[in-house]
Order: sequence, then C-alpha cells, then structure tokens
Amino acid sequence: MNNFRISLAQINTTVGDLDLNTEKIISNIELAKSQDSDLVIFPELSITGYPPEDLLLKPQFIQDNIIQLEKIIPVTEKISAIIGFVDAKSDIFNSAALISNKKLEGVHHKALLPNYGVFDELRYFKPGENPTIFNINGIFIGINICEDIWHNNGPFVKQREMGAQIIININASPFEIGKRKIRESMLIDRAQSNNLYIAYINLVGGQDELIFDGYSTVLNPKGDIIAQAKSFQEDLITIDLDILTNKYINKPTIVSNNYIPNNNKVSKVNKNNIDNLLDTNEIKDLYQALIMGTKDYVEKCNFDSVIIAMSGGIDSSLVSTIATDALGKDNVYGISMPSRFNSKTTINDTKELAINLGIKLHTIPIEEIFNHYEKILKNDVPNWESNLVAENIQARIRANIIMALSNQENLLILATGNKSEIATGYTTIYGDMVGGFSIIKDVYKTNVYKLANYRNSLSKKNIIPQSIIQRPPSAELRPNQTDQDSLPEYIELDSILNLYIENDNNVNEIINKGHDKNTVKDIIKLVDKNEYKRRQSAPGIKVTSKNFGRDRRMPIANNYTKFIFNNIHKGNK
Amino acid sequence: MNNFRISLAQINTTVGDLDLNTEKIISNIELAKSQDSDLVIFPELSITGYPPEDLLLKPQFIQDNIIQLEKIIPVTEKISAIIGFVDAKSDIFNSAALISNKKLEGVHHKALLPNYGVFDELRYFKPGENPTIFNINGIFIGINICEDIWHNNGPFVKQREMGAQIIININASPFEIGKRKIRESMLIDRAQSNNLYIAYINLVGGQDELIFDGYSTVLNPKGDIIAQAKSFQEDLITIDLDILTNKYINKPTIVSNNYIPNNNKVSKVNKNNIDNLLDTNEIKDLYQALIMGTKDYVEKCNFDSVIIAMSGGIDSSLVSTIATDALGKDNVYGISMPSRFNSKTTINDTKELAINLGIKLHTIPIEEIFNHYEKILKNDVPNWESNLVAENIQARIRANIIMALSNQENLLILATGNKSEIATGYTTIYGDMVGGFSIIKDVYKTNVYKLANYRNSLSKKNIIPQSIIQRPPSAELRPNQTDQDSLPEYIELDSILNLYIENDNNVNEIINKGHDKNTVKDIIKLVDKNEYKRRQSAPGIKVTSKNFGRDRRMPIANNYTKFIFNNIHKGNK
Repeated sequence: MNNFRISLAQINTTVGDLDLNTEKIISNIELAKSQDSDLVIFPELSITGYPPEDLLLKPQFIQDNIIQLEKIIPVTEKISAIIGFVDAKSDIFNSAALISNKKLEGVHHKALLPNYGVFDELRYFKPGENPTIFNINGIFIGINICEDIWHNNGPFVKQREMGAQIIININASPFEIGKRKIRESMLIDRAQSNNLYIAYINLVGGQDELIFDGYSTVLNPKGDIIAQAKSFQEDLITIDLDILTNKYINKPTIVSNNYIPNNNKVSKVNKNNIDNLLDTNEIKDLYQALIMGTKDYVEKCNFDSVIIAMSGGIDSSLVSTIATDALGKDNVYGISMPSRFNSKTTINDTKELAINLGIKLHTIPIEEIFNHYEKILKNDVPNWESNLVAENIQARIRANIIMALSNQENLLILATGNKSEIATGYTTIYGDMVGGFSIIKDVYKTNVYKLANYRNSLSKKNIIPQSIIQRPPSAELRPNQTDQDSLPEYIELDSILNLYIENDNNVNEIINKGHDKNTVKDIIKLVDKNEYKRRQSAPGIKVTSKNFGRDRRMPIANNYTKFIFNNIHKGNK
Repeated sequence: MNNFRISLAQINTTVGDLDLNTEKIISNIELAKSQDSDLVIFPELSITGYPPEDLLLKPQFIQDNIIQLEKIIPVTEKISAIIGFVDAKSDIFNSAALISNKKLEGVHHKALLPNYGVFDELRYFKPGENPTIFNINGIFIGINICEDIWHNNGPFVKQREMGAQIIININASPFEIGKRKIRESMLIDRAQSNNLYIAYINLVGGQDELIFDGYSTVLNPKGDIIAQAKSFQEDLITIDLDILTNKYINKPTIVSNNYIPNNNKVSKVNKNNIDNLLDTNEIKDLYQALIMGTKDYVEKCNFDSVIIAMSGGIDSSLVSTIATDALGKDNVYGISMPSRFNSKTTINDTKELAINLGIKLHTIPIEEIFNHYEKILKNDVPNWESNLVAENIQARIRANIIMALSNQENLLILATGNKSEIATGYTTIYGDMVGGFSIIKDVYKTNVYKLANYRNSLSKKNIIPQSIIQRPPSAELRPNQTDQDSLPEYIELDSILNLYIENDNNVNEIINKGHDKNTVKDIIKLVDKNEYKRRQSAPGIKVTSKNFGRDRRMPIANNYTKFIFNNIHKGNK
C-alpha cells in the first residue's frame, strides 16, 4: 500500500450536549467510511465539547462521556477513528482515543496542558506521560493534542524517534486576529524539522467567549500545506498521503476538500501597532468570526432571535449588520429609543439601516419617562441638565425598555459596546452595557470602522449608511456631545490600550513609544478604575490575544496604579 | 540559649498597594524588635498583597515588589524576618525571603502551587525545588508556604530530615465556614507526626471575594496550640519556644497574645447537611467574616459610604445591619422605594430597622414612574398586572434610582441577594442584582435567618424587628406574593442546592438523599439556566467551599442538563 487515506472531520460541538456531539461523530465516521478512508480524526474533547470547564468536576459527566465513547466504538467497522474525550484512571486526562475496527486500540493523554490566557487545564487534568505510536494499516502514527505540538520538545519528538510517519494533532485552538499565520508557521516548522506528515484537525464553532476557526490543515514533510478545510464552518476533507515513499506528490489525490494554496509569508503579528493589525484576509476572518460567534451563542443558548438598541451610531449599526448576517433578517429586532438629545440625522440613519437590513424597527421615545425621573430625583440631583446622573438615567431607561421586550418576547439582547469604551468605562453599567451577549466587546473602535467599511464593500449599495460612518462618534446623552470631548482620538486611544492591555507595557514604555504622558496616565487610570464594570459585563467574543473575560483576571480592589503614579510623582521612577 | 522568641505579624495587606504593605511590614519589624524577638514572620505575598492575579503578568510589578523588599532589608538590624514576596529568576516564584541583620540570607520557593477552587497559582508561578533549612541564632528552621504544609509529603519532610526544629508556614488561607477546624486538625497532625514546632502565620483582611480570617497559630511538637492570634483583625503575637530541650513547657512565656485554649474535637465539616452546618462559633465567625469583607472592600476600593435598598425583607435588613456594624451608622444610607405592592408592615419595619441602626433612610415611591412604563409598554406587554415583565420593571426602576443616588453621592451600592436566590435566578438582573458588592451572595437563606437571630442575640433589644424575621419571605412585586409560590421551603431548597453546587452530587444522588425527584429536577434546571445572570452579578464574599465567582467556572452555553434529563426520560439512567 502506497496511499494512506485520511479524513479530517471538522465538527461544531456544543459543551455538555453529549448526544448531539456523539451523533455528529458517528455520522462523520460513516461519511469517511463511504470515502474509503483508513482513518478519520476529530477535534479535541469532541465528545464533551470544549471547554467543558467545571462540568469536569462532576463525576457523572466524566462517566457519561465514557459511555458515549462506548457507543461510538461499534461504528468503526473497517475504519480507524481518533476522537477527543476525557479518560478517567486514578485522575482524569484530556485524551484522544484510537478506535480501529470496533476495538479501542489505545489512548493518548495530552502531555502539555495550557494554563495561561483563557486556559485552565491544570485545574482539571493530569499531564500524560510516555507517548507511544500506533500502527494503522501498516502506517505508524503518533497522536498529539493541541498544546503538545506547540512546544519544540512535545511528545511528537519521541514519537518520531519511535518511527512515527504521521503526527495526528487534534485541537480546540481559539481564534485570535493574526493567529492563523502563527499557527501555520509553527506547523510548517514542525513538519520540516521532523520530516513528518502532520494532520492538524481543529474544532469549529463558537462556545461562550471562544471562537474556533477551523482551518484544519494537512502538511507534508516538506512543510507544504497540501490540504486545508474551510474556515468558520463544518467541513470534512479527505486526502491520500503517499507515506511509504515519504515523497511529496505535487498533485495529491484530494478526494474532497477546498485546497487553498497558501504562499503567504508567515510573519509574527505586530501587536504593538493596532493600526496595522488587520490585513485584508484578517478583516474577513474577523468578520466571519463575529458572525459565527453570534450565531452559535444564540443557538447554543436555545434562542431564536435577538433584539438590539439601535442608536444610529457606528457600534449598534455594525452589531445589527453582523446579527442579520448571522441569524437572518427575520430574527433580528431593532429598537430605537430617542430622547431630546438625539438628532434627526441619527434617527433617520437608524431607519435607513433597518430598511437596508430588512429588519423590523420599533420606536419607543423615552422623553416622558426621563422627565418623570427628573421630577422625583431633582431634589437629590442638582443641575440635572448638565449632570452625569441624568446622562446615565437615559441609558438605564433604555435598558429597562429593551429588557421588558426581551422578557416578553424571549429575545436575546445583543449589547453594542466596543473594546475601546469597555476598557475606559465609557459605558453606562445597567444602561447600554445591558445584554446577554456583547459581540464587539473585544473589537477596538478603529477596527469597528474597518469592519463597517469591509461589510459595505461586499454589497453594491452601502448597507451601513455613510453618514453613520462619517459622523463624529457621540453617545448623544447631552447637547452637542462627542466622544472626543473626554477621550483622545480613537487611533491614539486604541494604540495606548493595546500596549497596556494586550502587551502589559508599563507607563514609561508606552510614553517612550511616542504617546503623551498625561494622556497615557489618564487612560491607564480609566482602565484600572473600571474593572468593576467589566466584571459585570455580558460575555463577548474573544478576537484579540487578551479579552476582558477569562483571559484577563484583574483584582477590583487594586491600588497598584495609585502606587505607580505616587512614585512617578515623587520622581522615584 | 534555651528560648527562641518568635513574633507572628498578622497584617492586612492591599493588593497592589506596595507602599502601604511595605510600611506595615517595617512597622511590625520595629514592634517585634522592641519585644526582643529573634524572628518576626509575615503572611504569604505580603509585599504585593494576595492574590495579585494578573498583575503578576506585568514585569514592572515584579520588579517593583523586589525594590520594596530591598527597602525592608536595612530595617532588620539584630532581628530576622520572613516575608512573602515574588522572586524572579528565569521564571517567577511565590516566595518567602529570610532576612537577618540587614542581609538577605535565603529564599524559599513555594513547592506546591494550588490550582483549584479560587486558586490559579500555576497560571503564574513555577514550583520551587530543593527545600533547605536555615540557622537563626543557632536554631534550625524550615520555611513552607501555605499549600506546602497541606500535603503529607510537603517540603517540611525533607526539612525535618535535614534537622529543622521549627517549620515556619506563611499563608494566605481564605476563610470558609468550618475551615478553621480542618486547618487546625491538619496543623496538629503535622506537628505531632513530625515532632516539630509549627508557626503558622495567616493573612487577615478582605480582598475582593476572599476573606482571610487570621487565627495565626503556634503549635508545639505535641500538637498543642500554644498561641493563637485574633481572628478578623490585625494582630502581632510573640511567644518563647523552648527549642533546645525540645520540651513543651505547660505555661509558655507569652509576651503578648490572646491565647485561646482550643480543646474542640476536630471533625470534618459535614457538607451534606446545610441545616447542621453552623455551630455557635461558626455563626460568630461567619458574621465577623461578613463585617470584615464589607469593610475592607469598601475601604480598599476607596469608598467611604454605602447605600442599600431596604425593602423590609430579611435580606436587605441583614445587609443593612452588617454594613452598619462594618462602617458605622454615619456611613450607611438606606433607601425605601415602595410600590403599590408593598404592605404597610414592610414599610414600617424598614423605618423601625433604620431607627434601630441609627442610619438615614430616604424614601422615593416608584408608583408614578411604574405607571408611565405601563403606558409606553402596554401595547407590547399584554396582561400587564399579572406579567413577569411588570414585576421586573419595578426592580429595575429601583435600580435606576439607587444608581442615580450612588452616582450623585459616590456611594457604593450593597446588593442584597442571598445564595439561594442567586443560585435559582430568583432575582432581577439589572434590578435587585444591581450593586458594587454583594455581601451575602454566598450565604444560603437558612443561614441568613441564623445570622439575623445571632445579631439580635448580641443586643438587649432586637435590632432587626421580629416581624421581619417571622414574615414569610416575599419579593412584593405582585399582590400576596411569597417566595414559596414558586420555590420549595428554604430548608429543602438549600439542602438540594448545597448537594448540587458545593458537592457536585448528581440528580440520583440528591434524590437518594430523600428529596423529591421533580423538585430536584426543577431546581437543577433553574441553577443551570441562570448561569448568565450570575456571570453579570456583583462580586461577593466567599464563605462556603464553592462560591459563584472564581470558584465555580461553568459554561453558559451548556446543554448537559438537557442531555441528562433527556436520558432520565428515556430511562437510560
């Protein structure tokens, strides 16, 4: 036999839905069988969904996942399958089962457990030891799980020494802007340095804050990408590998796939320059990630439809557009809640956008209720018209109304805040922060504009009216207000935030990159002081290397910034 | 020399406030010097505060903490000190520095890093290796850090073999109901089994969700507790140990302490019976924990005063009482916001409680605004009077008003929800869940009553009116409503919740403990489905073995309960 036929089953699992996940695994095994594959491989923890988090502390959950594995075993007549599950011995392991011809042949335990960023795997799993290799139809394979292959000295090294010809790497690798390049660069290096075929199967789909982008990939020992699955959707690709001669065939027999030749120069993402962060492919991927993240959260939480407070601003306009792309126009409800401070332009722009999207738009003015709050609070709140309290009340009246409609019609509210404003606290807690899911929470304002322009470029007619994109951003909570009354230009703000948040730069490092000292200090103070708001914010879709969720665990009671600025003041630093 | 004089400096640190923490360390070194101590010891990570969380990812933070250590070194003339800090080599370590007579003598790196429950130490630190012992004035000591001593095979074993006579264990051990007994039992066993003196120094104070209870303890090799510091407050105790003869002196020379003879039988907490959870000492400790947690959060977040929505119910009454005990009557503002559904009794009870506590009470009726919401929403919300939407609107109007006062007067809002209702979602998100800190969030309703009765027992006159304690609990959001319209009795509810949440029991295990099958299923569904609300809830004070914070990390999009109930239904389980 010269050819080894392998199928990569890039499925979208749901955490805890063991029946659904098992059904998907079984139907993909059947599909691979029908294509005469020797082996079909599935993503990390495909039986449980990823990440199961503290469900892993429930003994019954572990037991149930093993029962599901036992249901899959009989389906593997005349085929092999590699399936992610939780193995339980004296402890539990993040594992891959190799099943061949109705028999469990062996199990690989993940050796390298990530415990940084959004990952808490050492909270649950014991690291695996003694990697081994398996013989499938005369071909020797080594199994790795995700992190295992990211380190130079992962288990594949020993497996190669033992005679492995293919490394199967099963993954649940979360999407981040620019990560695809880094991942492919790593895989190319592993294949070349070890002279091995690599089949990299990734999960696809959204799970709470995480997006798995798919892009499952097969590489030959020269490091060429010889097959790649679709991104942001389920896929099954099958490819023949000419293993015994260990020679790359220029035109591999691809039974079914969407092979994308990838000759991009791989470069490390320049995290320090937000403005240059997104190339054309990246903006496209980001938009797709937001669509899939929205759709999957809504559906996996068992909702049909969403409601969005449409202000006529760029953020809510982008959110409405993404939601419509994700869920279809019949499942998106817009609500406009104007006050005395909303201009005719923004109200008309909202209407135009709703018409462009084809979604329903409901209007409930808040003026009368706002006047009543003024009446009962004016004794306690002097200078009502110019008081921040009155601005916040408007946002909170809107929150009450949208929550009432959400409760009444079982609509999930999509919050519309972007990363720049959530970072600086330029949001009203229990006001515009209200919602079940906050889809652009990890998208900086500068990228909000890029996404809006990108989406407009896809249709002949601008979906998002140019007036919305061009108008200076404003919360419209007092007369003639704009965001830049109290914040620097977004291009500068985002650059500072990116250095401080994603890159953990200190004050001096940020200043030395050309930013104004007082601006930097003001922004850092705002970021730190608003941790309490973020702690109560809706979950959102992670798209950067550090989101405001499991990724960034900051204390609320925290006087480090005070300490730093005291010492800068004293000239000690 | 026969005597070795040791001081335990039980200080209250603040995360990130490196100057404050350093000042406290220096002043306690001076105090111990004035008492002619050979050695003064400080809690885990005393320079940075505990837990610093992702501040540890900032290189400057690590560097700053080492600069602070260098400031402390010169103060140790003619005394030794052991101080918790972050050591930085090729990686960072949770460490204890031994400084003697102005010289850094050595450093112990924590060997066993907790990465379960609220702890994420493997996210940050590398485990220490090669434990050693140090000679202080002719006495050999081994240093351990917190988790190091909880395991039978901790570094103290090797240190004992090397000749250690005293184990110094520096800690930041979070309070939980019943944990003191478990901790003391462990320490007694360590002292006896290893024939060693143990000086256990604990942190004291609140930090976000965690409370550190103090109770620093010295044990002799027979396992007797020969000195113990105060609980829930700063303390410095000094004691002479008769080391060379290694013989316990019945009356040790205690220079200053509040030695509490402790002859309690140590027993493992019976986590399965919520009703028997609290003995008299435990209820007292719990009340103290809530006071300290409240006071420290308010102060460390740089607030002076709090505001509480007082409904006349038991929860807000207990919260107001704890807040007054914590902050003083002048720093607590009550607000009563009656609607048509509030009875005269609850309104009068609120007034009586405010008078008893001596706090200001402000009244703003919500009736008129409620009517206005009805007017603008009645087309969208049919059957307004009997609709859940109208109930939620009331809670959210109150939220708007209390937030306005909070914004105007810079008052921290204390939310009043208890663990039973937060677990089941019997709360209105953006309504009564609103607040900066949720002090009884981890206290089950049955314990809310015990705490109210306990607090009343401390004064001649009942502070909390009996009418509040005896009235059937009600949200008063519709006519004649009580909690038991839709929930089982709290004694049963809390028992089920405790089995499910703290003990990870599955459905059958809970039913087998005598609970009704349908009740169990209903409650578990409620708990799972309301994860989204908890994710947006205010932080609160952890007092059980599993709080709704860093302790319990559950997915929101999670269909495991659906899977379980489908399979129970199909008779598969």
